[in-house]
Amino acid sequence: MSVPADGTTNPGYARTPRTTPTRYKDRATWEQEAIHAILDSTYLCHLGFVADGAPVVLPTIYARVGSRLYIHGSTGSRPLRGARGDQGLPVCVTVTLVDALVLTKSAFNHSINFRSVVAHGTAHQVTDPEELGIALDALVDQTVPGRSAEVRPANAKELAATAVIRLDLDEVSAKTREDGANDDPDDLDLPHWAGVIPVTSGFGTPVPAGSTTVPLPAHVRDLTR
Amino acid sequence: MSVPADGTTNPGYARTPRTTPTRYKDRATWEQEAIHAILDSTYLCHLGFVADGAPVVLPTIYARVGSRLYIHGSTGSRPLRGARGDQGLPVCVTVTLVDALVLTKSAFNHSINFRSVVAHGTAHQVTDPEELGIALDALVDQTVPGRSAEVRPANAKELAATAVIRLDLDEVSAKTREDGANDDPDDLDLPHWAGVIPVTSGFGTPVPAGSTTVPLPAHVRDLTR
Repeated sequence: MSVPADGTTNPGYARTPRTTPTRYKDRATWEQEAIHAILDSTYLCHLGFVADGAPVVLPTIYARVGSRLYIHGSTGSRPLRGARGDQGLPVCVTVTLVDALVLTKSAFNHSINFRSVVAHGTAHQVTDPEELGIALDALVDQTVPGRSAEVRPANAKELAATAVIRLDLDEVSAKTREDGANDDPDDLDLPHWAGVIPVTSGFGTPVPAGSTTVPLPAHVRDLTR
Repeated sequence: MSVPADGTTNPGYARTPRTTPTRYKDRATWEQEAIHAILDSTYLCHLGFVADGAPVVLPTIYARVGSRLYIHGSTGSRPLRGARGDQGLPVCVTVTLVDALVLTKSAFNHSINFRSVVAHGTAHQVTDPEELGIALDALVDQTVPGRSAEVRPANAKELAATAVIRLDLDEVSAKTREDGANDDPDDLDLPHWAGVIPVTSGFGTPVPAGSTTVPLPAHVRDLTR
């Protein structure tokens, strides 16, 4: 439990030295609800691990199920090798959403409005077929909600070929910036344009494959409208 | 120099074990032009480094200047501490663009069309004021091309407070998927929707700050139209 500045008590993740930022501390939160909301807003993460003493960062997809992340290992088998043993694989999973570019009258004060989550911990490979099935469905539904119920589920052979690692959320924090241009007082009268440029993201018109004989299903329509 | 399959010789980055994927090798390239094109398409990277033996991945902005990346260190001072010494800081810098969700009739074959670059190397903190000025301008222009010439440049005090690390591109590769739904032949007749959902990104209407007295400049208009 963390205690926010307003004195109320919200369920929160543990605060540790490495989830406590050294700068802009007011942008950080450990509150579960805030962290889960960011994690539920996208499906792409960057998975960091150490290989031969050096850092490796790979993009991949994830799904949140409660206080657990399932992370797809198909970007390469390297992370999975480490996660197979009992010791697991120390990882850092980072999720970032950019909301706006913030333009100021000085080069120095330019900024970005964003929401990000950084989770530290030890990941383990999912080997139980039942949990693998749940994880694979969750990965499909994290990208397209409702999709997993309307496709052919994975068979035993596919589950055996699916590489998923599990990270229990414990040492995790979020950072957000949601603000306008913060110019120095001395710069405010400069004849430059300052302001906020929203960054937008969405989906284009779905393009059916040649094999598709059914109309656009609700789960695709809901995602893209 | 790498030699593509068509026998021509294109300038390419060095191919090493860790820039050679273990899966989907046909999606990888080491060609400079392809890698630079991806790096020039966005401004957000995920910076990985090792702290106390554990991986850390932080989102930040970068700029490409020739075969060099400048990476903003303001997400926290931790990476910079390591990059200050002569030895530098081993890093992995990853840039990812998602182009489409690829929906198949089986859960297992779902995929994502993407472009990504992964760069490995040793980063060094930029300390020379002239280079810092170049780097800060490049960071501003990577997000909003042409912007740096139309703002107040950083002064000496701001440059001293600017944390930028430099990574020379050397051990770097790109991976891309640009394809439709690849269903198993046995699944093609299933009554599910398969196809590609384009992922779009762009900018909304710029919102001027209260201090802005000038019309929307061309560099903002060009970005957002």
